[in-house]
Amino acid sequence: MFENEIIREILNKYRVLWSLSHASSLMGWDSETYMPSEGVKGRSVASAELALLYRKLFLQDVAPLVEKVMGAERLNEYEAGVVRVLGRELERMKKIPEKIQYELAKLRVEASTVWRGAKAEGNFKAFEPYLTRVFELRKETAEYLGYKEHPYDALLDIYEEGLTDRDVDNMFRGLVPSIKRVLERVSQNGYYPRTHELEGVEYVKEELERVNREVLELLSFPWSKGRLDVSAHPFTVGISLWDVRITTRYEGRDFRRSLFSTIHEFGHAIYDMNVDETLAMTPLEGGASLGVHESQSRFWENIVGRSFSFITVLKPILEKHLSVARGYDAEELYRYFNVVRPSTIRVDADEVTYNMHIYLRYKLERGLIGGEIKVSELPELWNEMMEELLGIVPPNLSEGVLQDIHWSITAVGYFPTYTIGNLLSAQLKNALEREVGPLAELIRARRFAEITEFMRRKIHKYGKLYPPKELILKSLGEPMNPEYFARYLEEKYVKVSLL
Amino acid sequence: MFENEIIREILNKYRVLWSLSHASSLMGWDSETYMPSEGVKGRSVASAELALLYRKLFLQDVAPLVEKVMGAERLNEYEAGVVRVLGRELERMKKIPEKIQYELAKLRVEASTVWRGAKAEGNFKAFEPYLTRVFELRKETAEYLGYKEHPYDALLDIYEEGLTDRDVDNMFRGLVPSIKRVLERVSQNGYYPRTHELEGVEYVKEELERVNREVLELLSFPWSKGRLDVSAHPFTVGISLWDVRITTRYEGRDFRRSLFSTIHEFGHAIYDMNVDETLAMTPLEGGASLGVHESQSRFWENIVGRSFSFITVLKPILEKHLSVARGYDAEELYRYFNVVRPSTIRVDADEVTYNMHIYLRYKLERGLIGGEIKVSELPELWNEMMEELLGIVPPNLSEGVLQDIHWSITAVGYFPTYTIGNLLSAQLKNALEREVGPLAELIRARRFAEITEFMRRKIHKYGKLYPPKELILKSLGEPMNPEYFARYLEEKYVKVSLL
Repeated sequence: MFENEIIREILNKYRVLWSLSHASSLMGWDSETYMPSEGVKGRSVASAELALLYRKLFLQDVAPLVEKVMGAERLNEYEAGVVRVLGRELERMKKIPEKIQYELAKLRVEASTVWRGAKAEGNFKAFEPYLTRVFELRKETAEYLGYKEHPYDALLDIYEEGLTDRDVDNMFRGLVPSIKRVLERVSQNGYYPRTHELEGVEYVKEELERVNREVLELLSFPWSKGRLDVSAHPFTVGISLWDVRITTRYEGRDFRRSLFSTIHEFGHAIYDMNVDETLAMTPLEGGASLGVHESQSRFWENIVGRSFSFITVLKPILEKHLSVARGYDAEELYRYFNVVRPSTIRVDADEVTYNMHIYLRYKLERGLIGGEIKVSELPELWNEMMEELLGIVPPNLSEGVLQDIHWSITAVGYFPTYTIGNLLSAQLKNALEREVGPLAELIRARRFAEITEFMRRKIHKYGKLYPPKELILKSLGEPMNPEYFARYLEEKYVKVSLL
Repeated sequence: MFENEIIREILNKYRVLWSLSHASSLMGWDSETYMPSEGVKGRSVASAELALLYRKLFLQDVAPLVEKVMGAERLNEYEAGVVRVLGRELERMKKIPEKIQYELAKLRVEASTVWRGAKAEGNFKAFEPYLTRVFELRKETAEYLGYKEHPYDALLDIYEEGLTDRDVDNMFRGLVPSIKRVLERVSQNGYYPRTHELEGVEYVKEELERVNREVLELLSFPWSKGRLDVSAHPFTVGISLWDVRITTRYEGRDFRRSLFSTIHEFGHAIYDMNVDETLAMTPLEGGASLGVHESQSRFWENIVGRSFSFITVLKPILEKHLSVARGYDAEELYRYFNVVRPSTIRVDADEVTYNMHIYLRYKLERGLIGGEIKVSELPELWNEMMEELLGIVPPNLSEGVLQDIHWSITAVGYFPTYTIGNLLSAQLKNALEREVGPLAELIRARRFAEITEFMRRKIHKYGKLYPPKELILKSLGEPMNPEYFARYLEEKYVKVSLL
């Protein structure tokens, strides 16, 4: 598998970098879960020092070998994968001047702190100078990295290898009108409610915790390789192939939020766990890209979790543990899980409206990077687009332009990966049904292991071996195609098929 | 405080080493508490890699500066402390050939694995070749490190800076006969029982957990800087000055075991937390030595925790939470906490007999290092000494020579630090009473913060600034003196004073 001498040397040297990432991942998990509050004083120093050390050792010990082997040697596809992944990392380290990288790291801390305060007060003016600097630095980053058509391409590629502005534009071109159409029909036919009484109902945390654990067991979550903990914002962290942890949160009411975040993170976790063991502790460990990763979490959360068939296997678990869910029949639970309501907040959005939120952010950040939009115009443009796309206007800036953390941590070009995840999840459903059988039947028969096995075979096991576009083409026989998602929405929300 | 240019450079470079230790400490804690079982596959690689990296960076970036500054510069006492502590670390790295260090690291893993199996089966023969190698390598280590009088000195100094075989011999000379005398009197006067019915009584884990937490609150454990978790063997880990975690265990019966291990670890933790903040993230962070550290844990566990006055403040907590403790009056609980019974197992030993177990190990390991004893003779010698010291013979080797993990992890010269801890704890009690007031009164009045403040002022705040002997002399006005402990035993167990 890895036979080239230099590649073997690279993998040897890489092991210490992997170990530093392992430690950093654990430190990240711990900071969000169990670390005592004052622990941050030491943790912040240690995290920063280890990040610098990673960079130093990468450039000093690994980079020269990568450069030596690049292009010069005949490599098999595994070896080429290693060079590709490390080459990308190296390129970013070398092309972006250290001064800029340092300023980005510093800005990330400062801007996100200011953002938190600004969001709490709905005060865009306080955040504006920081956001301006974020987009300035990101424009510079794009210039340093280089691009073919649009500077935004360079930023997209950071999060989703090979993704271009043209791809994203194509992706939304058919999608936006079809979402609009579905949305109109949903409000006409009235099957899916705009609100549900269970949204306001308080639950007993311990009861819901038992539900979440039993749902993970239903999905065959391997506890010997994972954990479920509690954090303010749910996340998944891959500490190694054999140690992938998820978190959820308990807000006290509207139990589906905790339940579906657990199922969402399950999808991320099972991906990280199922990468082929031969890739463990190499640069090919982990998911192909953010978009492909999100396809797994969204597949389990929405395509499986919010389907009517899933209610039939979930209901006994709810009956057993969750007192507030008792007395609701399957269809009522289904409608609660699938409330459709244009809302101002992305993270609260349903399957139908979610991608509109992404489209809005895409248009704005692309315009900012392209220079057609100024940061000062953002609040107004945000509200205008929100009205145009979803027919609503945020009541204040906290629920408008200030709602997301992403820009404050200098993540520009990240949002489109969410939509890629959604689109791929529907495309994967289609492929699964062609190869294995109707999803609804698999779910009703609790054949979740077969679903996971399909995903393992098509996506998980390859890790980062192929760039995302190549992986999809190879595994599904065609490139990503937004049609599947449009059709999925149509079938579920317009034809109202419960099966 | 740190003004010398080179020292400042050392501290700068040291920060990345500190960060690696920070990460390793967290990884160690996680491995014993929350890591999913298969996680060990990645964790073992990461731990080994980061340990190697630490060594490499120490030798490459810090060592040359330490050598440059050693002796050559005028240093204030803080600066001299840094050089002393790093100099000791450097000396060990340089004097012991890498080959030996590597073999020790390897043997640590192998021998402890074999030991576990051998202990389970009571099979010394299986362990003998490994133990032989341990003592061979430790003899070599002593030769490489060098010593004045006895090779054992070199090994003692690893765990307790400046400790010599002569010190240990002096320490036990008066102690052993006085323990014997106390032990005879205890069995004559019959006040302290040899067994207690509560030893066999099952408790509800959740109830005892609440007791442990409330006891920690009583002692003003700062939750913002610490945690209490569960592990197979209780321990304390200092991840930073602001993040020190303790663990306890719940075996299901004999609740004092969990309770007193919690109080014991509290003593360790409060020491690590109270080191002066100016020493944070420097080589002077942490405790002065194993013995001084143990003085803090034993002070809280035994001198405070097993005193009669402590029962008066503990009892309301037990009444409130722990059903199995209800119906026992203060004196009965006191007798349960202070059962005196020669037993074969060190970790189960009471205050009176505990140091006999250490004396036995000291005599044997000193003889092995000195060449007067062969490893093959150990089982028999162990049993002979046990009979001589405590009048009992282990029923099998698992409860005899195979009981401790220490030798299997190549820790030779470690055991005497336990007795140092016991002796110092009584000496500190005496000093506290001279300066602050009668301990029994402080406890009854719940003035625990004043006790901690005394310890902070005398011991904690200095971190590793002074070698242990110097610290004791400076803070208590006299060297360590076994008399205080002998007198403490006498007063508590012979005169039977409950106050």
